[in-house]
Amino acid sequence: MIEYRNLRVAILGGGSVGSQVAALLLQHGAELAARSGAGLELVGVAVRDATAKRDTDIPSHLITTDAEALILGADIVVELIGGVEPARTYILQALNSGADVITANKAVLATHGPELFAAAEQVGAQLYYEAAVGGAIPIIRPLRDSLAGDRVRRILGIVNGTTNYILDRMDSLGDDMDEALAEATRLGYAEADPTADIEGFDAAQKAAILASLAFHTTVPLDAVHREGMSTITREQVRSARKAGYVVKLLAICERLTDAETGVEGVSARVHPALVPLEHPLAAVHGANNAVFVEAEAAGSLMFYGAGAGGVETASAVLGDLVSAARRHVAGGPGVAESTHANLPVLPMASVLTRYQITLAVLDEPGVLATIASLFSDHGVSVEAVSQSVADGQSDVPPTATLVTVTHQAPESALADTVAALAANPVVSSVVSVLRVEGL
Amino acid sequence: MIEYRNLRVAILGGGSVGSQVAALLLQHGAELAARSGAGLELVGVAVRDATAKRDTDIPSHLITTDAEALILGADIVVELIGGVEPARTYILQALNSGADVITANKAVLATHGPELFAAAEQVGAQLYYEAAVGGAIPIIRPLRDSLAGDRVRRILGIVNGTTNYILDRMDSLGDDMDEALAEATRLGYAEADPTADIEGFDAAQKAAILASLAFHTTVPLDAVHREGMSTITREQVRSARKAGYVVKLLAICERLTDAETGVEGVSARVHPALVPLEHPLAAVHGANNAVFVEAEAAGSLMFYGAGAGGVETASAVLGDLVSAARRHVAGGPGVAESTHANLPVLPMASVLTRYQITLAVLDEPGVLATIASLFSDHGVSVEAVSQSVADGQSDVPPTATLVTVTHQAPESALADTVAALAANPVVSSVVSVLRVEGL
Repeated sequence: MIEYRNLRVAILGGGSVGSQVAALLLQHGAELAARSGAGLELVGVAVRDATAKRDTDIPSHLITTDAEALILGADIVVELIGGVEPARTYILQALNSGADVITANKAVLATHGPELFAAAEQVGAQLYYEAAVGGAIPIIRPLRDSLAGDRVRRILGIVNGTTNYILDRMDSLGDDMDEALAEATRLGYAEADPTADIEGFDAAQKAAILASLAFHTTVPLDAVHREGMSTITREQVRSARKAGYVVKLLAICERLTDAETGVEGVSARVHPALVPLEHPLAAVHGANNAVFVEAEAAGSLMFYGAGAGGVETASAVLGDLVSAARRHVAGGPGVAESTHANLPVLPMASVLTRYQITLAVLDEPGVLATIASLFSDHGVSVEAVSQSVADGQSDVPPTATLVTVTHQAPESALADTVAALAANPVVSSVVSVLRVEGL
Repeated sequence: MIEYRNLRVAILGGGSVGSQVAALLLQHGAELAARSGAGLELVGVAVRDATAKRDTDIPSHLITTDAEALILGADIVVELIGGVEPARTYILQALNSGADVITANKAVLATHGPELFAAAEQVGAQLYYEAAVGGAIPIIRPLRDSLAGDRVRRILGIVNGTTNYILDRMDSLGDDMDEALAEATRLGYAEADPTADIEGFDAAQKAAILASLAFHTTVPLDAVHREGMSTITREQVRSARKAGYVVKLLAICERLTDAETGVEGVSARVHPALVPLEHPLAAVHGANNAVFVEAEAAGSLMFYGAGAGGVETASAVLGDLVSAARRHVAGGPGVAESTHANLPVLPMASVLTRYQITLAVLDEPGVLATIASLFSDHGVSVEAVSQSVADGQSDVPPTATLVTVTHQAPESALADTVAALAANPVVSSVVSVLRVEGL
């Protein structure tokens, strides 16, 4: 029934994803061949250390340390090394040799995407990366193809499972950050060095990829505004829930118009945010990921599932493998990335958002009026204020806690307001500042 | 920049979806052309009555009543008439003339899918149908492409917005069925004749399409087991919530093995079911749709959004239009549907499910033992029983209410158990029988 020649598949990387892809390809080869119209022959798995222990049994004759030789003998190269180099070099070698490339590597795409897509286009090869964002969740194809006839306005994504697991534990079990991180490490959700997750570097790479794709515009990684979540406290999470929110680390990509200059552009940012409990993203628990998309015609869509894990990510890689094989059989060049729109990437200061600001203030007459005028001086209007006075202890001077939620305003005005509040003598301290998203 | 010739696009149908597609295509033509690599020229909209009022302003010179002439002059035909005929004839004419076809028509796909896909393959044309299931929600491409390397085990879908709106109102506001249906009709969610929605015909068509796609096997519409939701009462919905469930009309597609014969196959069914409150599908409110997919490697995924509506459905149609145009520009035949797996479609009796059975029984010694032995006689094991005795009125004989939730068992055994219960003299009446899904 299969008349097309076998396609030679090379895997670069024998880690948790690479070994699962190899195992599933060997196990379900006949089924995948029937779906593709061509046999998929695993010709080798390139690794750094041929003697290392793998998650699955890869036949030893398939293991090699010579990645470059393996690439030259392949129709389809699956890059699962991660990181920028040598992944970038190998991907370029493969594309230049005419092979299609499948990658799960967000770092190389976020930093060298345009170079790689240009190389693919030049030789008529294809570059697939469904696994680079959201693990097994199909999000790349929906954005690239299904929503290609629509105009995406906004993406709110929980795209890092480690931080979602930590924040979810802090919310549901009352853990502090250190306890939740220790548990995430014990379960294998967090790396030995969790910086990339906690500080939002991983999420920022994914934001750059999603924004580029959704807005048909190149959004470089260094244009993504990034704030980590290491400063989030148990108290902030607890107060958030009392006020009807959960704290999530969000990747936010928006199409927006700068209020001052009138320039139409896009922005991408990663930071912790308060999400209303009624929002679908608030119900994303544990290490799961979800991407919430608002489009002009389609309205609100959400894509939900496991955002990481060897076998889950392998599912996305194998989907790309079948797509690549089908294109081989059907003939014709791959679909190139579309960046025609070429919109400017606006800075964080242009973004419209809301702040929830918690202040410790002097408990005396006139304080609320002083605070209120500080907001209005900066053109920021206030949606809600709630004040609670500390239990009648003999504190001198007496202090109160003031929680203010603003209406939407430019980030620059909000940040200036917080600076002015901090400098005012009626404010003892700025206890917490969090953006509110998803309203 | 655009060097490819303009592609001529014909729309069949000027209803709510057709008029939105026409309006968006005229409005965003330049943007869609940039994404496609080819201009998209709307050459006409074929309607039955040229004088009818439309949802959007279509220039009158584009309106025609001659669908066949329009088809012959088009590169891409967008079929938005709905129903089986004349849609089927027009689609075949378009494909045979070498045009690509985009359709949102679940009825024609569920009844004549194989014929249409064969016609497309024979001439190397493409047939797109992202809008046929789940409105704007991208579900066709994720199943066909993103999950092509995985093995789908099960799909649980809320694929009919009207019935979800009605059941959600019955749950959240305590409406009875008639009140909720009246409100759905007033808001335009329900048609004047709501039979297709309420009785599950619409959902069954979508189940046939999803099952065929997910299992790479032709699942004909008449192999889909269908039960409507007209019998669901406010009391059932209220008791469900008390017991920790919501009632949803589900389309369920499964890969399963018949317990008796050992035959491996697939099944598709539509019926009301109890869904645990913790399940992501329980949080799908109003007229929204969601498709929950369980795959071997990917784990659990969910796709959520607006399941209907003119402009939302138009988003999916325009996504297909860009895909079709890109394929024209890139060259090569379209990807054919893959039905290689060709698994048998098993009858409802083979399906494993759970029942929640509510009985009115005589309140006298030995009744529980009688009931329990009836379950075990049929090989059905019981997970939980709760009994409540009617308030001490002077009923003669006194009755009690017995709610039993079973473990998983074949549908045939469960149905036989209910029949035996109904026939037993200790049972005054079978108050409610509902399947439990999503545990």
